[in-house]
Amino acid sequence: MTQDYLADAQELASRIHEQIPLTAAMQLSAQSYDGKTLVLAAPLTPNINDKGTAFAGSITALGNVTGWCLLTLWTEKVFGRNQCRVAIFDAQFSFRKPLTGDFTARVSLPDETECEVLRAAVAAGRNGKVNLQIVLADAAGEAVTLNGRYAVWRQN
Amino acid sequence: MTQDYLADAQELASRIHEQIPLTAAMQLSAQSYDGKTLVLAAPLTPNINDKGTAFAGSITALGNVTGWCLLTLWTEKVFGRNQCRVAIFDAQFSFRKPLTGDFTARVSLPDETECEVLRAAVAAGRNGKVNLQIVLADAAGEAVTLNGRYAVWRQN
Repeated sequence: MTQDYLADAQELASRIHEQIPLTAAMQLSAQSYDGKTLVLAAPLTPNINDKGTAFAGSITALGNVTGWCLLTLWTEKVFGRNQCRVAIFDAQFSFRKPLTGDFTARVSLPDETECEVLRAAVAAGRNGKVNLQIVLADAAGEAVTLNGRYAVWRQN
Repeated sequence: MTQDYLADAQELASRIHEQIPLTAAMQLSAQSYDGKTLVLAAPLTPNINDKGTAFAGSITALGNVTGWCLLTLWTEKVFGRNQCRVAIFDAQFSFRKPLTGDFTARVSLPDETECEVLRAAVAAGRNGKVNLQIVLADAAGEAVTLNGRYAVWRQN
C-alpha cells in the first residue's frame, strides 16, 4: 500500500517536470510517501549557489512545491484528478543554517479531523484553507522551516 | 551614472547565471538599477506552472535573489568584490494574486541612516542585519510581496 502511495507521488513528480519546467531544472524527485507524510528530494548540484551550498531560491521552491504536492495528492485521492486547485498564499521561511548537500523537504497532512474540515469546505464549494509545516534538511540535519498557508478549491 | 549602475547589475546577473544554475534556468536578468532601486526580471515561459501562471517556486526564488543582489551590489560598492557575504535568514511571502505574464521583482535600499548603521556593523566585523521589502509584479500590477530579513558580514 505504501508502495502505491509512493508510485502516486513519483507519477506526480514526473507530471510536474512536464508542466513546471523549473522542477525539472531542480531535478526534484519523490523520495517517500505513505499517504500522510511526503518527502521530496533535490540534489545539490543543479541547486548550488555561489557559496557551494543550496541556493535559497531552490530551497524556497522545494519547500513550496512539497506542500503543494502533498495537498494535490490528497485532493486527487479524495476528489479525483483535475477536480481541485491548490495554491500557496502565505509562506514564512526561517533559514537556520546552510544546506550543504543533497536535500529533502518533508511535510505531513494535518490530523483526520482537520482533513475532514478541509474536505467538507472544498466539497461545499468553499475555499479550504490549511497550514502546513515543511521541514528542509540534508544529511547534517534540519536547516530550514516553511510555515505555509495553502488554499484548496474545486476547479469548476 | 545610472548606466554604470545598470552595467554593474547586469554583470552580477551574468555572474550568478554561472554560479547559481537555477538563475540561468529562470532566465533572470537585470532590468534597472540606479544605485538605490534594483529591478530584476524573469520571463513567464521557463517559470510557468501547471495553471499557466508563474510557479510559486520561481516567484520566491526571484524575490529572494533580488534582495540578495541589491545587498551584494551595495557591499561590492562599499567594501569591494568578494569582501562580504549576504544571506537571507527570514522570508515572509504574501501571494495576493497570480502572476500571469513576464514578471519583475523590485527592491530599494533602506535610507542613508540605516545603510550607514549596516556599513558600520559590517566594517566592525559584526553581522549587519537589514529588512527589505521586495515587490513582485507583472503588467497587471503588484501580486506578491516578500518581507525579507538579510544578514551581511565580512568574509574574513
